[in-house]
Amino acid sequence: MLKPWIQSQARLVEIAAGRAFADLVIRGGQWVNVHTREVIPATDIAVADGRIAYVGPDAAPCIGPDTQVIDAGGRFMLPGLIDAHMHVESGMLTPAGFAAAVIPHGTTTIFHDPHEIANVMGLEGVRLMRDESLLQPISMFTQMPSCAPSAPGLETTGQPITEGEVAQAMGWDGIIGLGEMMNFPGVAAGDPQMLAEIAATRAVGKTVGGHYASPDLGRPFHAYVAGGAADDHETTSEAQGIARVRQGMGCMMRLGSAWYDVESQITAITEKGLDPRFFILCTDDSHSGTLVHDGHMNRVLRHAIDCGCDPLVAIQMATINPASHFGLERELGSITPGRRADIILTSDLHALPVQTVIAQGQVVAQDGALLADCPRIDWPDQARNSVHLGRMLDAPDFAVAATDTASTTARVRVIGVVENQAPTRALSADLPVRDSMVAAQGDICHIALVERHRGTGGVVNGFVSGFGYQGRMAIASTVAHDSHHMIVVGTCRDSMAAAANHLGQIGGGITVFRDGKELATVALPIAGLMSDRPADEVAQSAQGIVRAMQDCGCQLNNAVMQHVLLALVVIPELRISDLGIVDVTQFKLVDLHVPNET
Amino acid sequence: MLKPWIQSQARLVEIAAGRAFADLVIRGGQWVNVHTREVIPATDIAVADGRIAYVGPDAAPCIGPDTQVIDAGGRFMLPGLIDAHMHVESGMLTPAGFAAAVIPHGTTTIFHDPHEIANVMGLEGVRLMRDESLLQPISMFTQMPSCAPSAPGLETTGQPITEGEVAQAMGWDGIIGLGEMMNFPGVAAGDPQMLAEIAATRAVGKTVGGHYASPDLGRPFHAYVAGGAADDHETTSEAQGIARVRQGMGCMMRLGSAWYDVESQITAITEKGLDPRFFILCTDDSHSGTLVHDGHMNRVLRHAIDCGCDPLVAIQMATINPASHFGLERELGSITPGRRADIILTSDLHALPVQTVIAQGQVVAQDGALLADCPRIDWPDQARNSVHLGRMLDAPDFAVAATDTASTTARVRVIGVVENQAPTRALSADLPVRDSMVAAQGDICHIALVERHRGTGGVVNGFVSGFGYQGRMAIASTVAHDSHHMIVVGTCRDSMAAAANHLGQIGGGITVFRDGKELATVALPIAGLMSDRPADEVAQSAQGIVRAMQDCGCQLNNAVMQHVLLALVVIPELRISDLGIVDVTQFKLVDLHVPNET
Repeated sequence: MLKPWIQSQARLVEIAAGRAFADLVIRGGQWVNVHTREVIPATDIAVADGRIAYVGPDAAPCIGPDTQVIDAGGRFMLPGLIDAHMHVESGMLTPAGFAAAVIPHGTTTIFHDPHEIANVMGLEGVRLMRDESLLQPISMFTQMPSCAPSAPGLETTGQPITEGEVAQAMGWDGIIGLGEMMNFPGVAAGDPQMLAEIAATRAVGKTVGGHYASPDLGRPFHAYVAGGAADDHETTSEAQGIARVRQGMGCMMRLGSAWYDVESQITAITEKGLDPRFFILCTDDSHSGTLVHDGHMNRVLRHAIDCGCDPLVAIQMATINPASHFGLERELGSITPGRRADIILTSDLHALPVQTVIAQGQVVAQDGALLADCPRIDWPDQARNSVHLGRMLDAPDFAVAATDTASTTARVRVIGVVENQAPTRALSADLPVRDSMVAAQGDICHIALVERHRGTGGVVNGFVSGFGYQGRMAIASTVAHDSHHMIVVGTCRDSMAAAANHLGQIGGGITVFRDGKELATVALPIAGLMSDRPADEVAQSAQGIVRAMQDCGCQLNNAVMQHVLLALVVIPELRISDLGIVDVTQFKLVDLHVPNET
Repeated sequence: MLKPWIQSQARLVEIAAGRAFADLVIRGGQWVNVHTREVIPATDIAVADGRIAYVGPDAAPCIGPDTQVIDAGGRFMLPGLIDAHMHVESGMLTPAGFAAAVIPHGTTTIFHDPHEIANVMGLEGVRLMRDESLLQPISMFTQMPSCAPSAPGLETTGQPITEGEVAQAMGWDGIIGLGEMMNFPGVAAGDPQMLAEIAATRAVGKTVGGHYASPDLGRPFHAYVAGGAADDHETTSEAQGIARVRQGMGCMMRLGSAWYDVESQITAITEKGLDPRFFILCTDDSHSGTLVHDGHMNRVLRHAIDCGCDPLVAIQMATINPASHFGLERELGSITPGRRADIILTSDLHALPVQTVIAQGQVVAQDGALLADCPRIDWPDQARNSVHLGRMLDAPDFAVAATDTASTTARVRVIGVVENQAPTRALSADLPVRDSMVAAQGDICHIALVERHRGTGGVVNGFVSGFGYQGRMAIASTVAHDSHHMIVVGTCRDSMAAAANHLGQIGGGITVFRDGKELATVALPIAGLMSDRPADEVAQSAQGIVRAMQDCGCQLNNAVMQHVLLALVVIPELRISDLGIVDVTQFKLVDLHVPNET
């Protein structure tokens, strides 16, 4: 494990002075200096105790009989890349699996907000994520989730996060600050709990993550800024990004698996010529498939450069800028003495082939191959048995009774999925009544939110359109943002029950059933959110889900994401939660049945 | 007094939201935004509890019946200026007097290292300076002095500073970090006390001030950097400045009363085009006369702009850059919500007339006139009676006995003052022997170091040349860097005794005597270093000393400074201390008498 700098100080001095030998010396590279924003040729680096002792023209005196020597051969030496804000759970991996997947891409520091597991397991889930993060050979800092539930009164989480727990977590090793404060209406309204969570974070000098997901740059925005958030990654346009930085916040431009917010904002630097120091790159959410096939922060960097950004500025936005933002400028984010020896060797600053990755002084990847252990914690039963249905479900659990059994049709609300958009539409439809039950018809399927945290046996039913499912099928998922109950969508109530029960048996995941049989499953036994298998296996399983959904007739882009967001009761217009059908334009529960017009 | 941000958070939100009234609103200015490095027209600012609540196009809803409203009238609104490293004592003023002098120049934040009083009074002196600093209407942060004595074994301070005291002070309010670690050979050699002081500072996340006063950029430099200093203000050339920033340090470019190190380094930005974020402006030392006649950080800014620096970049180097350096980016250094409302109104970004100065929400100066109280502490007897001679001195105390009374001359070492240079020359001369005593002759005067901390009655005698003194005169000073005993220089031993006794009686200062009579005195009753009079009075008195020295035949530039540095036993070649004559090329005590060559 890396020692605090203080414990290595004397040794670093001895090595820099040429009086002692280093653990590792890199010779003859081009030093990408993110402090001056320049490239300095013919530079050596000496490393000891996982930290940089010396960067200069000649580290020969630091080479002893036990010193590992790497010949950079004139390649560029750049700081390891930093993901400034993201959610590990989005990869359906635990911190160990995520680290293993991203290290070969050159990521050596991650700031992650375990918001999803917090909704399932509360503070204990955060602690487990923190525990596994601290075991990794790279630097993984945990942001304390701020908003569980995201929408109080409209959903029930497994455990709520309280302001007292936020204050408690701020004293923990590895907690770097507060995770995205997404209750922006609450902050702007002066909600005491939200302000107290921010204050508890600031009281210990830590960084408050922001999330202001609104285009309104008027009073609510200014009130949110005054509340104390230090950054925002929800900006999607140049004007929004600039507004954040002008107000003294960091603008985190994200390129996630489904977020494409760099190109639209980086013009603030490339065209408007603003000072780039408070602009930062991040991913927010990366699916396993993206990690396996496309990369991680190296993908973001390449994209920024493709958008016309000077490679040195882009590298700063993924190294020194986030390090400074989190108050870690003397600890990491540059190749300078005292900092963690996180170094990438690459032959090209534009294409950025990640050839060698060094983290904390250890060669952790070479030519795409992981060379380090990424240890896992022994996830406790509480995490592995998190799907509590309380009973076996049966087809009638997914039935919607008609209110007027004399009528042949019933008018109900329908959640309308819109391709490539997170918001849904609040639709309504007249559906046939059969055996006193409202039946699905055409593209309108059943949807159910199955309570899974407390085993209440509760099932909330509704209708959804837009997936294009055909035949007798169902898809169920315990990934169900943000409170992560279980979302089941299907054309057939028997298949819905079978899919839900299957997830109950395997401890969570995503599964597709047709004609009562399992078509595809990705098992997510950790909190119903994460797999303990490697990223490539998870990506393959997830691809199996996509194929199964297509086999059932769904042709949507990102259909899995559309499914798992159907309970996200903070994004308009109509959603489902464990408490009922939610009108997110009014932030209130509504009846599934549309009242007769009189 | 300014409340912590946490206590104002809720009110700031209410005001930004337009639901509550501000204390102060500034309307219609051009917002100098140091985060984006741009000027934004037609901006309003709302202030409450001394902090910025809102910056945007319309603060009208924040104006209530008790709100003070200032019409900016299209002027520029820039953040109050920051002096990132300096010594208050150099102005011969206490923190209150210094604040009063610099506030009309637009300085709203000072980081000062009370190194001089620490040499006289130890930790208690630091505490007193900290106490008065915390009373000021501007932000005055204290750096804990690191090196007293500066040259252990070659001088005796009033009190030494220990590593335990450094660790203790790090827990105090108002202590922002460690003052310049000037024992750079010690750090590079791994001196345990020096490393421990740095470690104690880093252990609490505070900033370690550096001081590497050597042109050697080889191993000693790298070893010093590895020791952990975060900045350096001793750089005098572009190459030196760039070397610091490349190694991850802040380069503090200084323009003091006698330091001219901006022009030679700012080409790193103006010509080399390096990222300016880690370049910082400071003064290090400002005499009262400079403050009264030329300005403070506004003088430095104008100079940087005159050197070709973009005014917005120059402003960043005196605002957001130092704020970030000290980990205070969310607290001050920019006009953005939550930060201290430190604002200058000026009609011109190049000439920088400082028209209105607002500090912590209060108008503290208008058109050069101070409008705020700068409260003084009640300096205790220990500080006011710091000149302990132990007895009345007499002419024979300043006599040098000849070693060979049979000879008519004696060969002695002579400290050779060199105009406009801090280093002296190690000279020797044959002086006449009269009544068995070595006599001064021509331009060679007596010099004496009178012990004044413990009343030992000790007097070390020697000879000095280069001042050009004529007639029967003497000049004595209790400002005597770094251990601040008393330096007496004279042509006449009676006048030397009279001058020394006079300072003993008035509690310290600088005085010039001729023919046994006082010609001019600046009284410095606080620790023998500082006056409790206003800066203009002190400047006038100091000018009187200069005139008196000229009347006595001295035509040197900066003659007072040459005098007060004669005991600075860390700068070559020959100095005097309470322990004897010091050869600073060899860092050892030497005999005043030059041995006969045999």
